Amino acid sequence: MEKRIIRYGMVGGHLNAFIGGVHRIAIGFDQSAELFAGCFSPIESENTETAERYHLDRSRVYKDYKEMAQKESQRDDKIDFVAIVTPNFMHYEVAKEFLLHGIHVMCEKPLCFEVDQALELQALAKEKGLLFAVDYAYTGNAMIKLAKQFIADGEIGDIVGVSGEYLQEWLIDELGEQSDTIKLSGWRTNPKVAGISNCIGDIGTHIESMVHYITGLTIKRISAKLQTFGHPLELNADILVDYDNGASGVYACSQVAIGHMNDLSVRIFGTKGALEWRQEYPNDLRVTRKGQPPQLYSRGAGYVTGRAAALNRLPSGHPEGYFEAIANIYKTFAGALAKKNAGIPLDADDLDFPRIESGISGVRFIHAAVESGKNDSRWVSVEP
Amino acid sequence: MEKRIIRYGMVGGHLNAFIGGVHRIAIGFDQSAELFAGCFSPIESENTETAERYHLDRSRVYKDYKEMAQKESQRDDKIDFVAIVTPNFMHYEVAKEFLLHGIHVMCEKPLCFEVDQALELQALAKEKGLLFAVDYAYTGNAMIKLAKQFIADGEIGDIVGVSGEYLQEWLIDELGEQSDTIKLSGWRTNPKVAGISNCIGDIGTHIESMVHYITGLTIKRISAKLQTFGHPLELNADILVDYDNGASGVYACSQVAIGHMNDLSVRIFGTKGALEWRQEYPNDLRVTRKGQPPQLYSRGAGYVTGRAAALNRLPSGHPEGYFEAIANIYKTFAGALAKKNAGIPLDADDLDFPRIESGISGVRFIHAAVESGKNDSRWVSVEP
Amino acid sequence: MEKRIIRYGMVGGHLNAFIGGVHRIAIGFDQSAELFAGCFSPIESENTETAERYHLDRSRVYKDYKEMAQKESQRDDKIDFVAIVTPNFMHYEVAKEFLLHGIHVMCEKPLCFEVDQALELQALAKEKGLLFAVDYAYTGNAMIKLAKQFIADGEIGDIVGVSGEYLQEWLIDELGEQSDTIKLSGWRTNPKVAGISNCIGDIGTHIESMVHYITGLTIKRISAKLQTFGHPLELNADILVDYDNGASGVYACSQVAIGHMNDLSVRIFGTKGALEWRQEYPNDLRVTRKGQPPQLYSRGAGYVTGRAAALNRLPSGHPEGYFEAIANIYKTFAGALAKKNAGIPLDADDLDFPRIESGISGVRFIHAAVESGKNDSRWVSVEP
Amino acid sequence: MEKRIIRYGMVGGHLNAFIGGVHRIAIGFDQSAELFAGCFSPIESENTETAERYHLDRSRVYKDYKEMAQKESQRDDKIDFVAIVTPNFMHYEVAKEFLLHGIHVMCEKPLCFEVDQALELQALAKEKGLLFAVDYAYTGNAMIKLAKQFIADGEIGDIVGVSGEYLQEWLIDELGEQSDTIKLSGWRTNPKVAGISNCIGDIGTHIESMVHYITGLTIKRISAKLQTFGHPLELNADILVDYDNGASGVYACSQVAIGHMNDLSVRIFGTKGALEWRQEYPNDLRVTRKGQPPQLYSRGAGYVTGRAAALNRLPSGHPEGYFEAIANIYKTFAGALAKKNAGIPLDADDLDFPRIESGISGVRFIHAAVESGKNDSRWVSVEP
Repeated sequence: MEKRIIRYGMVGGHLNAFIGGVHRIAIGFDQSAELFAGCFSPIESENTETAERYHLDRSRVYKDYKEMAQKESQRDDKIDFVAIVTPNFMHYEVAKEFLLHGIHVMCEKPLCFEVDQALELQALAKEKGLLFAVDYAYTGNAMIKLAKQFIADGEIGDIVGVSGEYLQEWLIDELGEQSDTIKLSGWRTNPKVAGISNCIGDIGTHIESMVHYITGLTIKRISAKLQTFGHPLELNADILVDYDNGASGVYACSQVAIGHMNDLSVRIFGTKGALEWRQEYPNDLRVTRKGQPPQLYSRGAGYVTGRAAALNRLPSGHPEGYFEAIANIYKTFAGALAKKNAGIPLDADDLDFPRIESGISGVRFIHAAVESGKNDSRWVSVEP
Repeated sequence: MEKRIIRYGMVGGHLNAFIGGVHRIAIGFDQSAELFAGCFSPIESENTETAERYHLDRSRVYKDYKEMAQKESQRDDKIDFVAIVTPNFMHYEVAKEFLLHGIHVMCEKPLCFEVDQALELQALAKEKGLLFAVDYAYTGNAMIKLAKQFIADGEIGDIVGVSGEYLQEWLIDELGEQSDTIKLSGWRTNPKVAGISNCIGDIGTHIESMVHYITGLTIKRISAKLQTFGHPLELNADILVDYDNGASGVYACSQVAIGHMNDLSVRIFGTKGALEWRQEYPNDLRVTRKGQPPQLYSRGAGYVTGRAAALNRLPSGHPEGYFEAIANIYKTFAGALAKKNAGIPLDADDLDFPRIESGISGVRFIHAAVESGKNDSRWVSVEP
Repeated sequence: MEKRIIRYGMVGGHLNAFIGGVHRIAIGFDQSAELFAGCFSPIESENTETAERYHLDRSRVYKDYKEMAQKESQRDDKIDFVAIVTPNFMHYEVAKEFLLHGIHVMCEKPLCFEVDQALELQALAKEKGLLFAVDYAYTGNAMIKLAKQFIADGEIGDIVGVSGEYLQEWLIDELGEQSDTIKLSGWRTNPKVAGISNCIGDIGTHIESMVHYITGLTIKRISAKLQTFGHPLELNADILVDYDNGASGVYACSQVAIGHMNDLSVRIFGTKGALEWRQEYPNDLRVTRKGQPPQLYSRGAGYVTGRAAALNRLPSGHPEGYFEAIANIYKTFAGALAKKNAGIPLDADDLDFPRIESGISGVRFIHAAVESGKNDSRWVSVEP
Repeated sequence: MEKRIIRYGMVGGHLNAFIGGVHRIAIGFDQSAELFAGCFSPIESENTETAERYHLDRSRVYKDYKEMAQKESQRDDKIDFVAIVTPNFMHYEVAKEFLLHGIHVMCEKPLCFEVDQALELQALAKEKGLLFAVDYAYTGNAMIKLAKQFIADGEIGDIVGVSGEYLQEWLIDELGEQSDTIKLSGWRTNPKVAGISNCIGDIGTHIESMVHYITGLTIKRISAKLQTFGHPLELNADILVDYDNGASGVYACSQVAIGHMNDLSVRIFGTKGALEWRQEYPNDLRVTRKGQPPQLYSRGAGYVTGRAAALNRLPSGHPEGYFEAIANIYKTFAGALAKKNAGIPLDADDLDFPRIESGISGVRFIHAAVESGKNDSRWVSVEP
């Protein structure tokens, strides 16, 4: 197939916003796509400044995302996809607008606030024949691909237990006397902006999506215990999980766990082996086969094969990190778009990025957890 | 006070039994006590052989623990305490017999099967003015003393969350096709012998007692999810915990977690700091104070003070292990007996060993967990 | 100062070459500079293909680096600097050519083969008033900045000892029967291409430059033991080091150390504290102050200040890696060029990248090590 | 064979001395022997007090070790061996005396000060047919047995490199202004008491003996760089090593390495694999086979076999430590004595404890290191 540049536009993500810059760097790793249009900020100076920094054609810098979707859709050299890196509450409306105008979507997580919205986006994408990715960043790590492959190949047998954690400490000052003040005083306590959940929506969903991505297991129901410490939304959540195959799981997420920065970890226990991975040391995967000593697999080593090898960028021992994880998602997503543009059918590897289905189950998971938490941890179904 | 030898007898613990030998080695570390009497096994040859190995006076080797309690209680040089290292189902009856005869007790965990039994033993000990220790071995580790001291001193502020784990892999072969065969086929599946619980009774209670020992927190209620994998008793349990101070906890215990040998760990999160300890690396304590990097405290170092220093045996960097933990419990227990014998009042440090109250709350915990597990994880009170 | 784009050209680094792509990605992280010219390969198709991938103006794609230096130097929009990523043996001649034409230089390490060459380049750069950077990639890590700052601030007192290691396993198949075959059969065994050293030149110099960068210590003399295992050049080297302040060091580097991928580590011991850093886990810095427990500093945390904070890209717990280290070097280098272009004097922070002085001492170090190795490890001076 | 108690006496090791108590506890682990005689201290009260604590027969408490050797040798129930735990400078004379009287010897390291003395003791032991053990404690660790077995079985192929370290921080206060005061002011700076070496004699020899024990390699020559920091004896030493098989090694030992308590580690690199072990975490052995991920072997696990399994005391995950290492040496030594007493020939496993040959090579090593250190690190032969 002939290579042509994938063009993208961005909604949100002006120069001072964190995650927009991360996306641009990640896309730049492989020149997966090039930025051609943007609506980076409702503040005109921020919008303009960002556009100039990336040398955008003035005519493709938009004050309004609706205008952007409409005008771009009519160009011959229109953007192939839009990257949505706005505040969470806007994800749904922006994504919908671009889908309606026939433009593929990469959306930050969480996908949206309501299950109905999520299903509507899914239906729309299907109807229009569009790809819809959700940026569950950590699933992009090379060693996560290896973990997924090992499980698919039956290396650890049937899964019997799962332990997932996501611990942070950055909201610890919300506890105690000054709790009415600082960080949560902004949008995080305003349900219209933050949605119904703080900790689960922000980090708990990463556990959910990661476990599903690696194992393929579907959650049947959950029982959640939430701690708000006097705030409108929870800062800590412990969740019991029932999977469709009979396995059990425990997910623990916290933003008040001193000593932990961004400590996402997953451990998958099977009848023949176990896998353990920790986001802060993403180049390692601990693999134990029954009756044998644990082994420490290292990204980039010769014994690493399959997708993990295909997405490898650096020789073993040269650490990759957070940017590479997102870059891998974009590389795959853009590769799929290129094939699609060329009329080539997509296979499973082409679609190996978190898709709207992951976004939907994320929204379901958040709702179920909050409902359980409000009802004294009673079991709540997560199934459709 | 004048030093006199503390004499002890043992019920159970013949030469081929594991835990009896551990107790004898632990006692030997500090010559905390000397073995003078025993009823090591119902099998006469085992009983005799063990007695000979330790050069016991023939007249103090008993076929029957009741005879032992009675005869010893009448001697001028009677044993000061009995160490009970029988199978679990005998703990209650043996402990009761020795208490009735005025002999102090050190009993393996779990204390007994029923809460009523536990309360009866407590009342009896109180009535007779006897000391009653329960061997929650891991609480004897020096670094656990340091953790307890830090919390008591307010170093980590108010506790907001607890994470406890005890993961083992040794019953993994119980899963799968051969599951009707091997290890569980013995006493572990017979409720008369094993009690109502396997995994929680065997290892889960160590989490419960350890967290209580370090933090002083009392559990209000728990919600437990048990997995039996087709066996009469559970091999895996995940438990949500509500403490009296409003904190939440998660306890996870498993005997089918491949890659984990005897992996007891506790993490205590507070408003000002956090403590983390892992049994397999017992000489380290990870301490994080709010806004500072984690610190790795090392047993025996100059900055280690208090009880942790008092119980220290080796210079820093010379690892202590499992035996030392139990030796510390015995050293403290025997020290308390010596003081008591000498008519000296006991202070808090003298009584710094797991006592019958820990045993009682352990039995309560097991019952609550099993009840919750059988009732779809509903919350069950653990309070008296 | 007004921001203008820094333009760069590249010599070497066609699409299939490893390190050229790494440089381009690293530059792209911060849009530190933009690629305007290149002489990527002597093979025309490779050269063209690379140029097209980066949309270069045809007129600035050169078959010959001399032509490139000359023609670029005459343009109004000439490149600000050239990135030299050719095989090692060409570094000297290419660097010299661009310096002669008034173009700043970023050169891969090792700078060149001979000390005289290195000094010539230094003199030339000075004469022309040009900046000359050498890509000792690992010095770009944020936590290395913190280590340097701690030492400069006297946090660990006077340095008394240094331990540096760089262990790899990738040449292990050179040992044994097949040793006449594979990897070393190429340029690595040809002194005209590889220079006089294999292991020390390739990885040992990273230890040397890193220790110097962090500590500021100057090496007086070294004693080296080299192992060639039957090859023309060494695969393993152990080196004793005498520093100017009286401290001692040991540097060990190996390409046949099974179990180690790219394991560069440095430990600096002082009278008041010690620092330890390991390249494979670059976001951590272990700091021990006398009489206190070791602390694990984490990149991006609030307690990280100074240059380490200034170069930070991601919140703590979001791992950065190898690319970011090089990106930091380029960001600083390009920032210095921008200031220079604007006529602003450069301060120490502006010049905080490995400069030609590091390159020179690297060449001296290699020569001294080889000379010592060939003379039964006698001490050889490294001083000018 | 019929089991009879092994009797031992002790010279040195009164109650307030550290290492004597360690030996008694270690012996007590397995009741390897029983204490029947002693000359614990030249201070009568210390001697008596220690004897009483262990209920020794008054007639077997001696003021003088010569008297002890003589009188014990004439008893029917004489001690089988003497444990020598005196200050180093007395080792030779005490050992000689007991050998002359036909009593087996277990001696603390270093064996003695002079090579001639060591050879004399060896000749004497041989002549008298006596066993002579030297307590290189760390060789007793179970996982060291596994390491030795792996190498003997060819699991890592031919050894090509060795890295040994022993880092401590406890003499750090000797640096700086107060250096004329504290710790070194005692016997450590008096060559008559301490011998010719401080750091190498105290800890460096542990590296030497450990590497030899595991690998069987013999050192040909060494090149040592010593740092005294103004003291009579060295506090730091870095040593290059030439082995008889052509392999190279680096040994680094220090008592002024802040952040390290008792950090003995050895790494053995071979053509097919590598082994790494660290004393502070003695239950783990890191094993890497060529082309495979590192594996973490755990003491007590089912896959651990041979001597490591035979000497195992606790199930996997129940940490053993320093005491167990010495207990293993005593268990083996006492077992050999029992066999010898019974007239049973001793095989290699029976003699699997550090013997006088290890002591001799330790003395040679110290002398060579000091000679090299005093002669600007020139190579000095260690061969007989």
